[in-house]
Amino acid sequence: MSENNKKLSREPYKGTRDFYPEDMAFQKWLFAKMREVSESYGYVEYGASPLEPAELYAAKTGEEIVNEQTYTFEDRGGRKVTLRPEMTPTVARMIAARRRELPFPLRWYSIPNVFRYEQPQKGRLREHYQLNVDLFGVKGIEADIEIISVAYNIMKALGAKDENFEIRINNRKLLLALNKHLGITGDKYQEFSKLLDKKDKMESGEFEKKLKDILGGGSAFLLGLLSTRDLESFIGGLPKDLQEHESIKEIEEVLLGVKFNNPKINVKFSPTLMRGFDYYTGIVFEVFDTSGENKRSLFGGGRYDELLAIFDEEEVPAVGFGMGDVTIRDFLETHKLLPKLESSTKVSLCLMEGVAPDFVNNTAKTIREGGINVSTDWSQKKIGDQIKSADKAKIPYIIVIGDDEVKTNTFILKNLATGKEEKNGLPELIEFIKARN
Amino acid sequence: MSENNKKLSREPYKGTRDFYPEDMAFQKWLFAKMREVSESYGYVEYGASPLEPAELYAAKTGEEIVNEQTYTFEDRGGRKVTLRPEMTPTVARMIAARRRELPFPLRWYSIPNVFRYEQPQKGRLREHYQLNVDLFGVKGIEADIEIISVAYNIMKALGAKDENFEIRINNRKLLLALNKHLGITGDKYQEFSKLLDKKDKMESGEFEKKLKDILGGGSAFLLGLLSTRDLESFIGGLPKDLQEHESIKEIEEVLLGVKFNNPKINVKFSPTLMRGFDYYTGIVFEVFDTSGENKRSLFGGGRYDELLAIFDEEEVPAVGFGMGDVTIRDFLETHKLLPKLESSTKVSLCLMEGVAPDFVNNTAKTIREGGINVSTDWSQKKIGDQIKSADKAKIPYIIVIGDDEVKTNTFILKNLATGKEEKNGLPELIEFIKARN
Repeated sequence: MSENNKKLSREPYKGTRDFYPEDMAFQKWLFAKMREVSESYGYVEYGASPLEPAELYAAKTGEEIVNEQTYTFEDRGGRKVTLRPEMTPTVARMIAARRRELPFPLRWYSIPNVFRYEQPQKGRLREHYQLNVDLFGVKGIEADIEIISVAYNIMKALGAKDENFEIRINNRKLLLALNKHLGITGDKYQEFSKLLDKKDKMESGEFEKKLKDILGGGSAFLLGLLSTRDLESFIGGLPKDLQEHESIKEIEEVLLGVKFNNPKINVKFSPTLMRGFDYYTGIVFEVFDTSGENKRSLFGGGRYDELLAIFDEEEVPAVGFGMGDVTIRDFLETHKLLPKLESSTKVSLCLMEGVAPDFVNNTAKTIREGGINVSTDWSQKKIGDQIKSADKAKIPYIIVIGDDEVKTNTFILKNLATGKEEKNGLPELIEFIKARN
Repeated sequence: MSENNKKLSREPYKGTRDFYPEDMAFQKWLFAKMREVSESYGYVEYGASPLEPAELYAAKTGEEIVNEQTYTFEDRGGRKVTLRPEMTPTVARMIAARRRELPFPLRWYSIPNVFRYEQPQKGRLREHYQLNVDLFGVKGIEADIEIISVAYNIMKALGAKDENFEIRINNRKLLLALNKHLGITGDKYQEFSKLLDKKDKMESGEFEKKLKDILGGGSAFLLGLLSTRDLESFIGGLPKDLQEHESIKEIEEVLLGVKFNNPKINVKFSPTLMRGFDYYTGIVFEVFDTSGENKRSLFGGGRYDELLAIFDEEEVPAVGFGMGDVTIRDFLETHKLLPKLESSTKVSLCLMEGVAPDFVNNTAKTIREGGINVSTDWSQKKIGDQIKSADKAKIPYIIVIGDDEVKTNTFILKNLATGKEEKNGLPELIEFIKARN
């Protein structure tokens, strides 16, 4: 069997990751923080298969990703299947299927793995995990405020300081109204939107030139307006009949609301923020790293009330965001915020030669029943090697069991990091470990 | 856009499941129990992508599943990719990649989703989750005893009573030795193994006939021996020079060991247990529902020391098991052991018309900071409908906020199940809810 397989690769499939226990420990820590904050606001978890009927994505228009970047294949029964590239079509499908029975407002979150066929690069893999937090069924701006607050509080729970990131907001309705006022409609608006979406990746001269190409003479006014970063000056620069537009009020209310709920938040208006050009219908926001290490947004979201259009269903008000694990890990690394994690196993029992398994099993059982995760080294290696193994596995404590321990039922608990030892009976040692955690 | 899509399906892909919050709550409960018990024995979690290079499965021989039942497709770069049908090849790959650095003995567990292309039926879906618990690097029988104890204790943690299930064990080495003694080798042994593996799905007459077809005259002795259920009589029936065979000692030790560790365990020797016919090399075990509802084993495992053979690596001793979520759910349902789960959200704030959002947000914040998950109903529906929605979402408590609450800063906490009300300040109500959970 083995001769044909000398070159069988030990690498995971290109653009995907293996999660060894230390990688998994980080992922579990990250997901636990995401869950904790989302649930504290009343969001409940849902899930679905990564396999979806391909039609679900074909139904959406204007998305490059469907054609070039999805994993789509035919199953053995001739069905076209896609590995989900994002969670929103799935959530739309699930809501459309049970719309009448679901208890609105729905607060749903999920942490699915999503797949995109692209060249792997820093921050971009073929498979990554993405927290999706969505609030369905609330028309009012309170929903937008809440969703931004959830995003902010996850960043804080991950250890980010207020100066490490800023949140920029804009309103799709404002851009639409402004462009309508300027006569930029139809294809021209599409072109303009796409250009705006790419603005941050361009030299300012290039943007200016392309804007002129699209809009001709009218571009100068817009260019001036869009470079205003301060909401008050921006409003002042608007045509009179747009200065009290509903979209402006929404932006003001969102800014006030998120600041009221989160006094130290670093949030500002950004008239050029587009957040892609697909399904958003109102307030959009993005979170940026302030360190300058990372010019692209870390993540973002917004309002997308036309969620169910592909199912010919009435509108459902919807606000949400998606937060990818790879980008967030890079952010935490940049800011030296990666947690130091030890093993979920707290004690390793290292065994001297000849010690009776029954005694060892009873010892382990007592520790386990005391609520402490404990492993037993049955390898019969030398004690020194058993201890090295525990240390490598990031298990904080060891207990060596030999004849003395069997005779006296007293044990020495050793902290591998400090070298400190604690000699006592099991119940006392269990309490000792618990007090420390 | 919508006219072309009138028939866009709202169903998940065939043979997969949507996890609405109530389904997810069960899955989270199940996985939490699996994690809790596995970690208590010192197992640590790992993970990997469901996408694997197809070669990983082609390397294994004798497995029908590779050819007919996998999801395999070509990516846009011409690479053959398989959706993992099981976790063992992945774990072998990961260990082979870092063999020198890993801290043996390794105790690893994972709860991956795995995929098989087959006709969906009761207990068999195209995607299911499977807990994999494995101990690598221990040659001794202590590992086999521990793994069976972990499996047993997960069943107990799920609420199963000792009379609800039994564990049957056998030893591949015993069958091999016995067959060698009888001159049943090579292809004949393969045929015999396959037949034995299917024994429980056949009428006894059919099994007898097929055994005769394979073995001719020698089948009568074997038939008598294999129908012995009691270890002592079985040993008595063995040829003299096999009665003290190493494999018999292992079975005896495992039976003693798991009974010592778990005094009430329902475990017995089963000479016909094969546990498939692929990679096992020693002790094998399976867990059976005793209710008679379900004749197939619920799950099982065993020793498979040739794990790394496909990578041309030296043997690594390995013992483990895999436990599927669909089968276990069916088992729990049969025995009326499905838990009653409420929402992770404990309180819903229902809002009277005109109440100030700032007051509501501050109230929610205080409750949240008190460690209670709370949602706010911003829908502006009638109070009665807001309460119905909370009840439907299985949120146990509501607080209605109107002018009185704003004036007095005193709230009425209502338990939706009992109708009981508790009037008090927020700090007292927070303590009240915490005391109850």
